[in-house]
Order: sequence, then structure tokens, then C-alpha cells
Amino acid sequence: MKHALNVTREADFAAWYQAVISEADMAEDSGVRGCMVIRPWGYGIWERIQKLLDQRIKETGHENCYFPIFIPLSYFEKEASHVDGFAKEMAVVTHHRLIADGKGGLMPDPAAKLEEPLIVRPTSETVIGTAMARWVQSWRDLPVLINQWANVVRWEMRTRMFLRTSEFLWQEGHTAHATRDEAVEETLKMLEVYREFAENCLAMPVVAGEKPEHERFPGAEATYSIEAMMQDGKALQAGTSHFLGQNFAKAQNIRFQDKAGEFAHAWTTSWGVSTRMIGGLIMVHGDDDGLRLPPAVAPHQIVIVPMLRETPEDDAVLTYARELRAELLKLNALGEPLRVHVDTKAGKGKRWAWIKKGAPLIIEVGGRDVAGGNVSLVRRDRLYGEGGKLASAVLLRADFIGQAAGLLDEIQLGLFAEAQARRDAAIVRVEDWAAIEKHFTGGEDKVIGWVEADWSRPTGAALGAVAAKLKALKLTVRNTPVGATAPTGTCVFTGEPAVERILIGRTY
Amino acid sequence: MKHALNVTREADFAAWYQAVISEADMAEDSGVRGCMVIRPWGYGIWERIQKLLDQRIKETGHENCYFPIFIPLSYFEKEASHVDGFAKEMAVVTHHRLIADGKGGLMPDPAAKLEEPLIVRPTSETVIGTAMARWVQSWRDLPVLINQWANVVRWEMRTRMFLRTSEFLWQEGHTAHATRDEAVEETLKMLEVYREFAENCLAMPVVAGEKPEHERFPGAEATYSIEAMMQDGKALQAGTSHFLGQNFAKAQNIRFQDKAGEFAHAWTTSWGVSTRMIGGLIMVHGDDDGLRLPPAVAPHQIVIVPMLRETPEDDAVLTYARELRAELLKLNALGEPLRVHVDTKAGKGKRWAWIKKGAPLIIEVGGRDVAGGNVSLVRRDRLYGEGGKLASAVLLRADFIGQAAGLLDEIQLGLFAEAQARRDAAIVRVEDWAAIEKHFTGGEDKVIGWVEADWSRPTGAALGAVAAKLKALKLTVRNTPVGATAPTGTCVFTGEPAVERILIGRTY
Repeated sequence: MKHALNVTREADFAAWYQAVISEADMAEDSGVRGCMVIRPWGYGIWERIQKLLDQRIKETGHENCYFPIFIPLSYFEKEASHVDGFAKEMAVVTHHRLIADGKGGLMPDPAAKLEEPLIVRPTSETVIGTAMARWVQSWRDLPVLINQWANVVRWEMRTRMFLRTSEFLWQEGHTAHATRDEAVEETLKMLEVYREFAENCLAMPVVAGEKPEHERFPGAEATYSIEAMMQDGKALQAGTSHFLGQNFAKAQNIRFQDKAGEFAHAWTTSWGVSTRMIGGLIMVHGDDDGLRLPPAVAPHQIVIVPMLRETPEDDAVLTYARELRAELLKLNALGEPLRVHVDTKAGKGKRWAWIKKGAPLIIEVGGRDVAGGNVSLVRRDRLYGEGGKLASAVLLRADFIGQAAGLLDEIQLGLFAEAQARRDAAIVRVEDWAAIEKHFTGGEDKVIGWVEADWSRPTGAALGAVAAKLKALKLTVRNTPVGATAPTGTCVFTGEPAVERILIGRTY
Repeated sequence: MKHALNVTREADFAAWYQAVISEADMAEDSGVRGCMVIRPWGYGIWERIQKLLDQRIKETGHENCYFPIFIPLSYFEKEASHVDGFAKEMAVVTHHRLIADGKGGLMPDPAAKLEEPLIVRPTSETVIGTAMARWVQSWRDLPVLINQWANVVRWEMRTRMFLRTSEFLWQEGHTAHATRDEAVEETLKMLEVYREFAENCLAMPVVAGEKPEHERFPGAEATYSIEAMMQDGKALQAGTSHFLGQNFAKAQNIRFQDKAGEFAHAWTTSWGVSTRMIGGLIMVHGDDDGLRLPPAVAPHQIVIVPMLRETPEDDAVLTYARELRAELLKLNALGEPLRVHVDTKAGKGKRWAWIKKGAPLIIEVGGRDVAGGNVSLVRRDRLYGEGGKLASAVLLRADFIGQAAGLLDEIQLGLFAEAQARRDAAIVRVEDWAAIEKHFTGGEDKVIGWVEADWSRPTGAALGAVAAKLKALKLTVRNTPVGATAPTGTCVFTGEPAVERILIGRTY
């Protein structure tokens, strides 16, 4: 069977991923090292993510604000473990002026060298912590619950669009609390916000859980993640929530006077998700015909393609398409008014272009439809009928309008159910190391998913040994799922009594 | 009469401006040179601006996308006049790694010096033009209508919050068209979008017009602006729209094949507004008690302050406040659901805090209000009653709910009318240079507004002479208003026949 992309998931998953991005006009190389151009369709998905997640962030009491993109070098020197974690690959601003180089070009002006270099933010804990130290004096000033939507830069040697780029877009939440318990509660609350958002909006099943010690955010006391399984069986860390203890508060002197008049350091958290989520969307829902978008995050949920032939009949077709759109705009699905687009661009192949872009419902209307009061409907989630032909159904216009919102609900739930079934089928329970070795020696390209195992939660050198053992098989501990069943056996690594259940898999 | 701020507009306008920003918790110094922290109340205003303007940008057919923050140095060398205009103060990234400096600190790693320096975007014409050259091949690919919401950096020596900061937030629209006429139409269309937005949403009267030749955007064939008058009589350029001709298209090779098969360069435009608009809002509407926000851009339109005394009675007061909010949320004003906040924070002086922040309607409720089914209302636009006392009116709760939406409409229109009357009264028609000299020799601190004059639209050296003459009085030509009355006399500078009517004033 022939598909719209010239490479299949089965043949070359990495090449397929790039093909989806390119054929769906989501993003492209910018010509600037490690940075991508996010094109309107890709950015439209990000706008949907922003809108839906921002609602949730505000409903949980957070306010948005904005901090500088530049962080003075000295800020990174304050929090030792944070420096160790981040002081590697960052964009460093050293000059504030260009001058003519005398050869017809430009160069940094040696006379305009900064006294202290500025770092383009890789994350904003240090600069936000400094502000919190100004804001927080008394218990009345707590909690501080803020969030920022911003661009950040981490110089990456090997980049992949959406998954790992030198510049990316994200939100970073930062909070400060009077007690440890409150900060832990906040950390887990935002983890749950991410889980609910990923599952209900992105239709992406995720496992929320705690990362092992050696994969914590630098300076954190605990790091939690949501982990999604891609169609090649690999894990994608799609969001993180960190309990920072008092480490940052001490480094940045976020102190307050409690009700009894005693001074104490605040307890802080941070949490973020990024444009990486779009990479996850592609790899969870895409197929060999391109992207498939859950209606909740589709910039257009329904695309109407008028078949224009540059004849006088075109006017009637266009009017019909626009009236259909106007009717549909009166409806709600998934708690919001429908998003409907009429594609009036010149040129052919428009229906397949929207299939590749993953619009959930695609309507074609031509002169015959106008005469009959019909529409031709393609569902992106059920593209082919019997015999492998494109399943284009002719419906009465009124019937389609009556069904439209329900179809979008159905597609949203259907994509989630499909991804969940696939993920669940690819998680295997193992009782010992031999089973892990056996499971993961099927070659890197085979879809072998994750294993669930019990361990003794080793720390320090013992954990290092476990990580090395896993690394030899290109494996990592993904997380300890929140609310997992209590372990029953012994640790698959140490043979000691197990204390936790963990997930192990390959990753990006 | 005593006011909430410790400095008045009359006494020291610049100090008053900073006091409003500080007392309204809008923004603060970040500790990072030239960059500010935009706090939740200031950022909330920006989010309102984004939402309302983004709607308008999309309704006129534009799509959002995202381009890299870094622009390779060589991109700036392509368009000569653009380089001359911008190649001065920019943040230059020269290294991509930090290492330990051997003295317990960090330094840029000499081994990680970039082959080509990267510039933190001061504006994105060059990188977007490069992308357009990839996207545009045929007339079918035109027009390209895109917009970006982003941070940009222009290294500024003297900064002022919101008005001139090294980093600022803005939107930049970039379009490419097949014909000159279409591009000119686009330039003027977006100028009109800005005018309508400024007047209807920010309640800020503006004059839309063309900037003189020497104040054009580098590389533009024509630059248009909207100019607002601040309460000290100075002009603030609050938005610009540029017709770029084929200059950028030629430098970046944006070429297309027209219907006849001939190759031609596209015609491009760009247009932007920034966080500077928030500075304009403050200086147009603020008073000696702080900010006054037009309801359309107020993050909270109605703030309910329950008077809490840490007694058992508090529960009833809180419940009453929350029920009132729930009722108000069912209402619409200015085309959107009301935005209502209940301030449950601990501490005193909350009503005055919201007055300083400029919330349009402030409701206080205490035990007596609960018992009587009342609310105590303060209108931010009519703060004082007879005898200079705070005008707090007791209303039946149901009456207030019935009036709320109408009051917000009234405040929106009232703030505009007040600003318009003040501006119009401060524009004086002059017939010759002597009248200009006389008008503007009242000292820089006096509110002397603008003058309207006719000129011969000199160019080149003659224009330079005019600019110098004006500069001696700290004056500039603001713009040639779109649709202004035809000139009647002779040029106030050259004595030649006048061809245009212009506005002249001081600025920021």
C-alpha cells in the first residue's frame, strides 16, 4: 500500500520523523546552528499547547511574569551543584557593539567588551531566585507562585527538531513556600497538571513518576517527570517538576520571618514543559501519511477544501464552503468553539496536504456537492477503507454539521486509546537482570518498549554501577511511577529487598 | 490634597512615572544591565495587549511563527542601509561554553569560540527574509503574511522601564507581496490596525502618519507611526509600520515567477509594537494616585476586597465575596466575560494597593455589607468626591451587578475622551517658524504639546538643516498625519509652497 510520505516508520523511524515535520510544514532548518524556524502549522500547535496549559497554570493560582534573557555569569557561580550541571554548553555574550572590520564586513568592537559576560538563560532559577529574595520578607509574602513563557538556549552538539534544539520555547514555573510540605505538594500538583494535560489535550498517555537520583535537575532534592512512549518503543521525557528543597533559597538568600518572628529559608520548586512536546505528539500519533493531530491541539480541527477550477462555478463553491464554516463555528467541541478553516489557496493536492498536516476532519466540496447539498468527508484517524482506498464519505451537509462535534470528541478519545493500548502492550514485567538483558537484545531498531522491574533504590556508587550496567544496553531508568504497586521481589540489580517499582527503557 | 504617590506629575513627571511602575508592582530593575523584571501586574497588561492585538493580526490574515533569537553576523552585512542603521549596539555571542577559571569562578572557554559571532536579534528582517527566499518561488506562494511574538535586544545606554530597555517584548509582522500596491496597502492596513487597537483597547488617542525621510527604519522606503501624546505634552511613538519596497527582497533574494513566467523580486513590509505601549498607557492615563487602566486591558476589571479580621465572621465575608464574583463572571463587557478577582491576601491597605494598580472598579465588602446585602464601590476614574474624600459608594449588591458591565464601558470611553480632549487642546496650529520658536520656549518641563505646521517635505541636506534647526529646540517632526487637511500656506522652514501638514513636538 502506498502512503503519502516517502519513508515509513518501520523502514527508518528517524527519517520518518523528519519527513513528517517537513511534509506537514511544521518546522525547518533556520541556517542558524541548532535553531529551527517554527512555521505557522507547528507554531499553531504550540499556541494551542500554550493556551490550554496556561489556563491550567492560572487555575492552580500561578501568575505569569517575565525575567531577563541575560543572566550575569556570577549568578551561576552561587549555586555550586547548579553550576556543575549547567556550566557546560551555554551561549555567552561578551560584546555589546559591532563595528566595521575594515574589510567590508563587521566584527565585535574590542572597545565594547562587557566587564562581566552575560549568559543567554538556559533556565531561570538563578535570576528568579534573586528576585524572590527581594520579594519575600515575611510569611505574608508566601507562597510566591509564578510562571514564565520564554525562549531558552542550551548549546547542543547534536540537534533534532523539537526534541533537542539549541534554542527552544517553554514555560518555567517557579514557586517559593513557607514549608517543606507545601513545596512537595506543589511539585506533585504540577506533575499532575502535566499528566492531565498530556493525556486529555495531547491524547498522549504518560507515566508520572520520580526520576532516579543521578538524573535529578542540578540542585534539586527530587525530580519528577512524565514519560511517554513513542511508536518506536523509546521513552520521551515530556515534562519535569522539581522539588528544590532549600538549596536555591540558601544560595540566593530567599529568607522570611515566620509568624513567630523567626527567620527561615523558603522551600522552592520549578517545573517546565517545552516545544519538545510537539516532537512527542508526532512520534505518538503520526503515521505513514504524516501527522495526526488530536482535535484539542489542532490549529484547525476541520479544514474545508473548495475544489476550484477557475470557472464561474467557483463562486458558488466558495460561498457554499464559507457558509458551511459559518454554521460549524456556532458549535462547540471539547469545551471550545470549533476551529474551522477554508483553504482558498491556488493549486492542487490540497486535500493530501491537510492529510499530511494531520487536520482531524477534512471536507472537500465541489460543484456536485453544492448541487446535492453534500460534503465529502475524510477522517484523518480512519484514512483508508477496504481495499486500501482513501475513505471519503459523502454526507448530507446537515448530517455532517450534526455529527461534527461528536466526531472530534471521538477522534480525541480514539487517538488516546490507540496510543495507550500500544504503550501498555509494550511494557513487560521482568523479575531479574537476565530477563532485562534478554528483552533488550533484539537490536536497537526493534520496538521493544519498556520493562517494569523492582529495585532497592541504590544511591551513590551503587547507583552509578546500575547506571553503567544499563548504559551498556543503551538503557536508562525512566522513573518510579507515582502510585505504583508495591514491589514484591528483590532488586533486579543488587538482589537486595526491593523498595520500589521502576520503568526501564531506551530514550531520545 | 494628599495623594497615594509621594511625587506628583506636576512636580517631577519622570520620577512620577517610576513611582507608578513601582507602586503598582508593574516592573522592577532586574540587576541585569538595561533589562527589567516584568512583574505579574505589568505582565498581565502585556498578556491583554497580546490577546487583543493577536486577534486583530489573525483576522487580517496573518499567521504566527517563530524564528531564531540568534542571527549570524554575516546576515547583517547583506543589506547595507540596514547595517548602517543597526550595526551599533547589539549583544554579540562569541562563545558557547563556560569553564572553571581556576579561581573558583567561571569564564568563557577559549576553546569554544564561535567561528562566526551570533547576534541576539534586534529585529528579524534578515533571518525572516532568508526564510522567505526559501518559501517563495511562484506567484502562488504570495502573499506571505506572518507575525512573531518575541523578545529582542538593542543595547541601550540610557534605559527607562517599558520605554527603552535593552531587552523588550514585541510583535513583528513581516509580509511579502507580488506588487508594490499590495505591499503599500498592507503597510497602511496594519497602521490602521494599530490605530484602532490603541484607541479602542488602550483608550489612547493616536495620530497615524508617515515619518519624515530621516526617521525611516533603515532600509525602508516609507515608515509610518502612531504617535500618542503623554500628559507632559511629549510624543511617544507607540507603533510603526514599514514599507520596505524591494530593498530587503533584493538583498535576500526573495524572487518569484509571476503568472507570465517572468521573475521578479517581492515587495515586503514589516510592522511592530512593543512593551513600550505599557509606558504609554501609564503616561496617558496615570494620575497622582497611580495607574488607571482602561477596562479592555485591565488584567482584573473588578477587584473584590473582603475585609478580613481573623475572626469567625471572615468565613461569611469570604463566601459573600466569592458569590459576588461568581455572579459577575456570568456577565460580559467589551465583548468578553468580565475579569473579576477576589483578593484574599493577608494584610492591610489592600484597597489602596488596587487603586495604585489602577483596577477600574474596586469593591470592598465587610461584615456590615454582608448583613445589608451591600457592596462599597470605588471607581478608579472618579476617585474623589466633594471635599477631596475618597468616593466610596454603598450600593445594593444586585444594583451593582446590574450596573457593572455598563460602568466598565463608561470608564473605557471616559478615559479615551479625557485623553483626547487633553491632546486636542495641546495641539496648536502655527504658520511660521517664529511661532514655533515662541511656542517651545516655555521651558522643557512645561506642558506645551505639539504644533501643527505646513512644510515643503524637504529631502537630503535641506531636511538635515530642518532637523538641526528643530533639534536646537529639542524638537522633532512626529509625522505627516494620514488624511490630514491639505496644506494652505508656505513651508515654515523653507518658505517654499507647502505640500504637507506635519506635527512637531518633543519626544522620549
